[in-house]
Amino acid sequence: MSLPSVRLNETHDTDLRSWVESANADGCPFPIQNLPYGVFRRAGGDEAFRAGVAIGDQILDLQAAHAAGAFSGFDELARKAAHAAAEGATLNALMALDAAAWSELRLALSHVLRTGSAHQSELAACLVPQAQAEYALPAAIGDYTDFYTSIHHATAVGKLFRPDNPLLPNYKWVPIGYHGRVSSIAVSGQQFRRPVGQTKAPDAEAPSFGPCKRLDYELEVGIFIGGGNALGEAVTMDEAEGKVFGLCLLNDWSARDVQAWEYQPLGPFLSKSFASTISPWIVTLEALAPYRCAWTRADGDPQPLPYLDSATLRETGAFDLQLEVLIQTRAMREAGQPPHRLSLSNFRDSYWSVSQLVAHHTVNGCNLRPGDFMGSGTQSGPQPEQAGSLLELTGGGKQAITLPGGEKRIFIEDGDTIVMRASAQRDGLPRIGFGEVAGTVLPARSLA
Amino acid sequence: MSLPSVRLNETHDTDLRSWVESANADGCPFPIQNLPYGVFRRAGGDEAFRAGVAIGDQILDLQAAHAAGAFSGFDELARKAAHAAAEGATLNALMALDAAAWSELRLALSHVLRTGSAHQSELAACLVPQAQAEYALPAAIGDYTDFYTSIHHATAVGKLFRPDNPLLPNYKWVPIGYHGRVSSIAVSGQQFRRPVGQTKAPDAEAPSFGPCKRLDYELEVGIFIGGGNALGEAVTMDEAEGKVFGLCLLNDWSARDVQAWEYQPLGPFLSKSFASTISPWIVTLEALAPYRCAWTRADGDPQPLPYLDSATLRETGAFDLQLEVLIQTRAMREAGQPPHRLSLSNFRDSYWSVSQLVAHHTVNGCNLRPGDFMGSGTQSGPQPEQAGSLLELTGGGKQAITLPGGEKRIFIEDGDTIVMRASAQRDGLPRIGFGEVAGTVLPARSLA
Repeated sequence: MSLPSVRLNETHDTDLRSWVESANADGCPFPIQNLPYGVFRRAGGDEAFRAGVAIGDQILDLQAAHAAGAFSGFDELARKAAHAAAEGATLNALMALDAAAWSELRLALSHVLRTGSAHQSELAACLVPQAQAEYALPAAIGDYTDFYTSIHHATAVGKLFRPDNPLLPNYKWVPIGYHGRVSSIAVSGQQFRRPVGQTKAPDAEAPSFGPCKRLDYELEVGIFIGGGNALGEAVTMDEAEGKVFGLCLLNDWSARDVQAWEYQPLGPFLSKSFASTISPWIVTLEALAPYRCAWTRADGDPQPLPYLDSATLRETGAFDLQLEVLIQTRAMREAGQPPHRLSLSNFRDSYWSVSQLVAHHTVNGCNLRPGDFMGSGTQSGPQPEQAGSLLELTGGGKQAITLPGGEKRIFIEDGDTIVMRASAQRDGLPRIGFGEVAGTVLPARSLA
Repeated sequence: MSLPSVRLNETHDTDLRSWVESANADGCPFPIQNLPYGVFRRAGGDEAFRAGVAIGDQILDLQAAHAAGAFSGFDELARKAAHAAAEGATLNALMALDAAAWSELRLALSHVLRTGSAHQSELAACLVPQAQAEYALPAAIGDYTDFYTSIHHATAVGKLFRPDNPLLPNYKWVPIGYHGRVSSIAVSGQQFRRPVGQTKAPDAEAPSFGPCKRLDYELEVGIFIGGGNALGEAVTMDEAEGKVFGLCLLNDWSARDVQAWEYQPLGPFLSKSFASTISPWIVTLEALAPYRCAWTRADGDPQPLPYLDSATLRETGAFDLQLEVLIQTRAMREAGQPPHRLSLSNFRDSYWSVSQLVAHHTVNGCNLRPGDFMGSGTQSGPQPEQAGSLLELTGGGKQAITLPGGEKRIFIEDGDTIVMRASAQRDGLPRIGFGEVAGTVLPARSLA
């Protein structure tokens, strides 16, 4: 097996098995090599939300494990990280530490959860079945920035708005991004009302007002910041990944008709701020280390400016992470039909790397704080069927998609649930799953 | 004296005087009719930051006043508000209450600070001279939204970018806004490094990298949200001002050359996220009630859509609030010269009202939270000399401004301090001052 030149350690060992038996099943998204973090509680009660780690079909309660002394035999950094993870109802305190501390905690978790661990009996009491859990946002998010890293998406969308000039001149130089709305970000399971707003048909004299008619999803990778930087200090490419706590999935719901009317000259606003849904589990960069791949540029494309360039970028700057989006309409749900796949793409096709997003974001001195969140932008692949939004899959809302039961969709209808999944796979290595993010659209509020 | 048809009460009485003598001086920005809130501590020590109210040249420490029992004789709502104000190091808990509670606390403060108050001796011990204080952000800001409400600014800036089509077709229908960066907002006194970034000259083949060459200020009114709304619920025009805790000043520093290259298609990003500076005092809407004025539209302009319209909007939707921006260069500071006025404008010239910003922001169901912050956008008046940015005052960077000492400025140079002030005035009424926001630009970080 040929691994990229990233630092691997014993937590990546393919032979590792867990005493949590479900973690060892073929294709399980949460094997002992994954160990993603989330915030959960037992559903239906009034327990406090707290941090946990997914292992198999269980969650290891980090507060309970810490209280049981599971980490007391590890070195100081691991104990400090475990203490931070056990603190409060978010992961912010853990995120505020650094990559060395995150790595030590991961190593400790790998030890206590592996077969033969002396901690098995005390930790078995700290497991909560995922089937019984509900989730909260894993962090108090300070700022949310959404990028636009898929050149395939930017080109496809640009063609719809500007047929002669689809890709703007700055695209290949600047990792385009904008500030997003934090208050309306929620965790998987979010149900939200179809947004209402102003839209204007191209030939209309005046705008009209009502529920959005072109509601869309955007398939994105979410990036949680850890560590951070002081105002006025830039993060270099070499430091950038040390400021990333981990990745998740993001559905950046978009009201296309609202967007078209409002977005000039200051960018999307109400077309994006009514809801954004993320998956509950944050997969750490260390868990993803064996699934890194080369970051490349097409022949003829400009090389990145020095502040966006590094040697390791070219070797292992990208993530081989398969992304999937599915739909389950109300009729499908009522008929017991599973969600239907709309498209597949891969994060390795992103034009800009995660490290470049961090370096660019801070080059002006902007400070990132632990718990800050970034979206990758819609991840569309090079083929049309790999598009990460309905706007692209339907050719700008012109060709309907026919679903297995015969229903047709151009944009999202009330009652539709959109599901996104991701996993990293490589021959001979276990599958590292992200779980899923699901969200459901409810009818617009009454305008009577 | 003719007052607008807004609800006034005894706290607005022009004959009220305070036992804090400095509050009664002619032209004092903080008379007993003002009572703005801020967060402060004695400078140079390690006291905790806490809420206070400006009165004359003093600050009433609300934590100390509450502990001294100053509010125990007032009704339950006033006591609840005083308790919330005394809580923690921000005003968020007070902001989370509603306009009725804010009004009761204002009434209580007016009582205990007026001449003849039985609380004078115990509260005299709770005063801290403003000259000895330092300030913090008055709230933990969840989200920051920047609007674009001055049609004079939008037209002037539009002319520079699009001479044939200065004002975009959506401007008179949509209160244009975008999400801003929270992490780099600081209180008056902020000193920050000149931002660094990508820029591209119109005739250059590729972008270049280095310190910003066109650094500008933007004179804005800041809006702090109180109360808030649930995700999926819209705030109506009639409810909107009840969700506004108060106003302050905002300098939305802007890197014009970075902005020109990065802003398409998703709006300003790094050109705005390196620093934003606000004044320490939040002036409540109730304090500003006597200074309201009619909101009007020019003949021929479209009337607002119903969700942006109301009867009181036309009567008293605007604020007669004079805004001023000044510069003090390093040479001026070293020569002991005071700041020099660059322009004067007035918030009443805003094309969109504060209530319209709140109603528009939430019409899609976006939730506002207590402590959320909005900027009005650059407030330029109808005359060219009333412009709220250097970009406009210098005709797009073409005509230098000569300062009293002979120095010239096109954009901001290292060491320059920009000062903004605001006050509401009306014949026969006391002046309601905002204090000031000052910020200083330091040299860019070394790129060696």
